[in-house]
Amino acid sequence: MKIIIVGASGTMGRYLVNVFEKEHEIVKVSSKGGDIPTDITSPSSIEDMYKQAGAFDALICTAGPTFVGPWKKMSDAEFRKGMDGKLMGQINLVLIGQHYINPGGSFTLITGALTHEPQRHFANASAANGAVEAFVRAAAIELGNGIRINAVSPTVIEDSPQYFPFFPGEMPTTMKALELGFCKSVFGVRTGQVIALSH
Amino acid sequence: MKIIIVGASGTMGRYLVNVFEKEHEIVKVSSKGGDIPTDITSPSSIEDMYKQAGAFDALICTAGPTFVGPWKKMSDAEFRKGMDGKLMGQINLVLIGQHYINPGGSFTLITGALTHEPQRHFANASAANGAVEAFVRAAAIELGNGIRINAVSPTVIEDSPQYFPFFPGEMPTTMKALELGFCKSVFGVRTGQVIALSH
Repeated sequence: MKIIIVGASGTMGRYLVNVFEKEHEIVKVSSKGGDIPTDITSPSSIEDMYKQAGAFDALICTAGPTFVGPWKKMSDAEFRKGMDGKLMGQINLVLIGQHYINPGGSFTLITGALTHEPQRHFANASAANGAVEAFVRAAAIELGNGIRINAVSPTVIEDSPQYFPFFPGEMPTTMKALELGFCKSVFGVRTGQVIALSH
Repeated sequence: MKIIIVGASGTMGRYLVNVFEKEHEIVKVSSKGGDIPTDITSPSSIEDMYKQAGAFDALICTAGPTFVGPWKKMSDAEFRKGMDGKLMGQINLVLIGQHYINPGGSFTLITGALTHEPQRHFANASAANGAVEAFVRAAAIELGNGIRINAVSPTVIEDSPQYFPFFPGEMPTTMKALELGFCKSVFGVRTGQVIALSH
């Protein structure tokens, strides 16, 4: 299977590349470096990436820039970081990618427990997650040719301990659970679902 | 109570103005006309509106422009309509309005059943709703001074029969139920909740 992994140089992306490249052809996409450097906040950069990658069977996105910071600093400008990044970045990967993906292929986007379990400083990520999850349910009834779409929703992940203090009492999502979540979406048959890896 | 109603010239807004103006001071805000014409896609227009309205006790928003149309026509440009309108428009009403609202006041935003019950042609509204609902949960833990925030989530409403064909099998939300939903948020004690008026 030919799998595009967006966010391939991040903590989650590197882990997934390492796992999936054993049995699959992986195209590594990240903001800097990877096989195809891509700015997911730019629709034309996404279009260029797909042209370069060619037809594929699955896209996994683990990239989701958002603004993390005190509520008092949150204005339209800060909020746009997540709206242009984790939200429109991922949605454009689907709106554009549907014209390049093989029949029966799948898109798997990244959200997170913050949709339903807010934490201080993360309102921007909560909103982006909520949008992407609702989009996944809506896109599933629109995509043709047996193309599926799901979201994987971890909480703070095991390999990012620097974020643990922001998620008091939260059991981190193990990297193995994260891998299995993406496997469920990419190799299973479900569509329009949020695969929650916490609560 | 001094209540700002945004979207005052729309179907929901007109109904709510009529109900609430019997016992409350209402400031009518809409894109064209009303007491204070305001473009909610513009943060500076929102700021001007609040300066003109002065301190208030509750804000109700029933305005949520989104793109409704065939999936095949959906690209970044169309999707931005809901992102700048129903999503950032409502979020900016809160981010800016928190500096003008009285202590103990409330914000009540509008979402809709499309968050969880997608329909063809409405993916943009689904995404906007999902974002606003997650934002409401996140903002509730950040707002100070006893300020509350909720969302009201109707399905297609009784007084908009032109939309019935897009929502097969859906029992329309009555105008009375809509009124009671907003009453729960404005006059009750809850915060961070989505008041679902269907399913």
